[in-house]
Amino acid sequence: MRLTDVGEFALIEGIRRLMRGNYDPQIIAGIGDDCAILRPLPDQDLIITTDTLVEGIHFHPDWMNYYQIGWRALAANLSDIAAMAGRPVGALLACSFPASRQKSHFDQLIEGITALGKHYDCPLIGGDITRSKRGIFINITVIGLVSRDKAIRRGSAQVGDRVWVTGWLGEAKGGLEYHRQAPPLKPEQFSSTLRRFLQPTPRLEEAAFLVDKISLTSMIDLSDGLSSDLRHICRESGVGIEIYTSHLPISSSTKALADSLGARPVDWALHGGEDFELCFTSQETDMEPVVREFRERFGIPLTAIGRVIEGRELSLIDERGERHPLPPCGYQHFRK
Amino acid sequence: MRLTDVGEFALIEGIRRLMRGNYDPQIIAGIGDDCAILRPLPDQDLIITTDTLVEGIHFHPDWMNYYQIGWRALAANLSDIAAMAGRPVGALLACSFPASRQKSHFDQLIEGITALGKHYDCPLIGGDITRSKRGIFINITVIGLVSRDKAIRRGSAQVGDRVWVTGWLGEAKGGLEYHRQAPPLKPEQFSSTLRRFLQPTPRLEEAAFLVDKISLTSMIDLSDGLSSDLRHICRESGVGIEIYTSHLPISSSTKALADSLGARPVDWALHGGEDFELCFTSQETDMEPVVREFRERFGIPLTAIGRVIEGRELSLIDERGERHPLPPCGYQHFRK
Repeated sequence: MRLTDVGEFALIEGIRRLMRGNYDPQIIAGIGDDCAILRPLPDQDLIITTDTLVEGIHFHPDWMNYYQIGWRALAANLSDIAAMAGRPVGALLACSFPASRQKSHFDQLIEGITALGKHYDCPLIGGDITRSKRGIFINITVIGLVSRDKAIRRGSAQVGDRVWVTGWLGEAKGGLEYHRQAPPLKPEQFSSTLRRFLQPTPRLEEAAFLVDKISLTSMIDLSDGLSSDLRHICRESGVGIEIYTSHLPISSSTKALADSLGARPVDWALHGGEDFELCFTSQETDMEPVVREFRERFGIPLTAIGRVIEGRELSLIDERGERHPLPPCGYQHFRK
Repeated sequence: MRLTDVGEFALIEGIRRLMRGNYDPQIIAGIGDDCAILRPLPDQDLIITTDTLVEGIHFHPDWMNYYQIGWRALAANLSDIAAMAGRPVGALLACSFPASRQKSHFDQLIEGITALGKHYDCPLIGGDITRSKRGIFINITVIGLVSRDKAIRRGSAQVGDRVWVTGWLGEAKGGLEYHRQAPPLKPEQFSSTLRRFLQPTPRLEEAAFLVDKISLTSMIDLSDGLSSDLRHICRESGVGIEIYTSHLPISSSTKALADSLGARPVDWALHGGEDFELCFTSQETDMEPVVREFRERFGIPLTAIGRVIEGRELSLIDERGERHPLPPCGYQHFRK
């Protein structure tokens, strides 16, 4: 069955039925009116973010199924909510499909979005479904809440802070290269790397844990790549940052994949986009118990990879202790 | 200069500079962090809506300039905020452009969005700029505020209410047909009709005036077409509605254009999409002074076009007083 056999209104009604009973009391109106209505509690700030996935640019249906595409589209947004230490309350989905596409693909997309949304209490509360001439466009906007003045911003990193990341770096880039190059390798060898690419977990629970345990001065999620994203912290905070090559957390699965493809895993870790890990700065010195508990609870590492320094520059300290400028080689649209 | 000569980050920085100083104190963070941050006042509900314009589906750059495309993209969203009797506080822009497109077109799009946004205190507070393979996609999400429990919904129309519309109906359809058919007619003859198509005014001030003067039971904005949009009120309110053909407000400019194109202006008024007028129900009986003041203040009519009745059906009472079912012939994506 094709979308043209169904029509926009039936598609919307299908999503609305799926959502029935999934709204918490702060959602006064979800799908089915001109706007969704939210009621913040007193002393809550509202946070909002939007991300688009474009077929042929951000995803290829040959590489991942529609469930995974939907999952990734919401995960990219939830990652931004996590980066502010907020919790999501609802999402709006604006998507455009060619009319000739299969209804089943649309349904799988919705399933991927709602499966992840259900896990993090982030139902679909509105949206817009339109036709496109060519290619699928998926835009999701997520609204979240955070206690008043408790959002972690990019602009408060302090000289002397250590720079931390959650999880493993370069996994999404590894997954991307695996699919792009289609090497004659068994995917099971690199399953953790490929899984992070296909179905990333946004670090919402991890962020909540961190703000509960320690004081963070700034935080960002890694979407364009470490070397690009860290510049935002440098710029907004008016500081420099140095990163130690030897500290970069790279999984054995990712190292093995990079070796097989003749790539340098460090390059993937520094410049690969869409890891959706959190990068934060903190003055905290006694981090050992936090690092241990983090690893036990979430099954991923928490790693100090650098330090906030004077200046405005981003630099890399290599294995021999030599300093190099670290240019922003992460992904940028309209640029090679 | 092409977008590929500029890059995503410089485009974002350009918009950020444009917005500097345009945020009111409720916007704690605008462009430049993982999320925008808003601080609702106590007793404010938050309303949120999203709309997409797709090149070749919703607009053709041959028909309107990029300023007008940007204006329309925001206007469609502000119209939804108006339909809830809210006021906008900020917008997120997610847009995808082919890399080969002109930077000047992008700039004009932003100009159109920000010109309308400035008029209604709705700055850009975030977004996502990406590349597309083909065609432009413009998605805008607007966040608005409304006093607690004061949003006008679709589900409270009462049997006996009169049905009202603001402005003239069928103008956007007239403008669309004029551009689609490109007849050998002088545009000056139909300037008010064409202007409503190219650069619609969202009815925010009109909605604020109405809720101040009278009690509304339900409201919706006319985006798909009267015959489609009214069904939402019927359905959500569990009522029927009858519309009187002879009452439909059709401007002389639109009538003349329809005549010239061999079309029935009543069809445009009933089924034409994107008029972005407001349609509401009210029990108010003494409307004469309100209608007069509305006309004086806004230069457009306020017209009673029908009545809420028992049942679930939408019907049309023709000039001879005969009743006909009114099928939903407005625009629906994926359907002819």
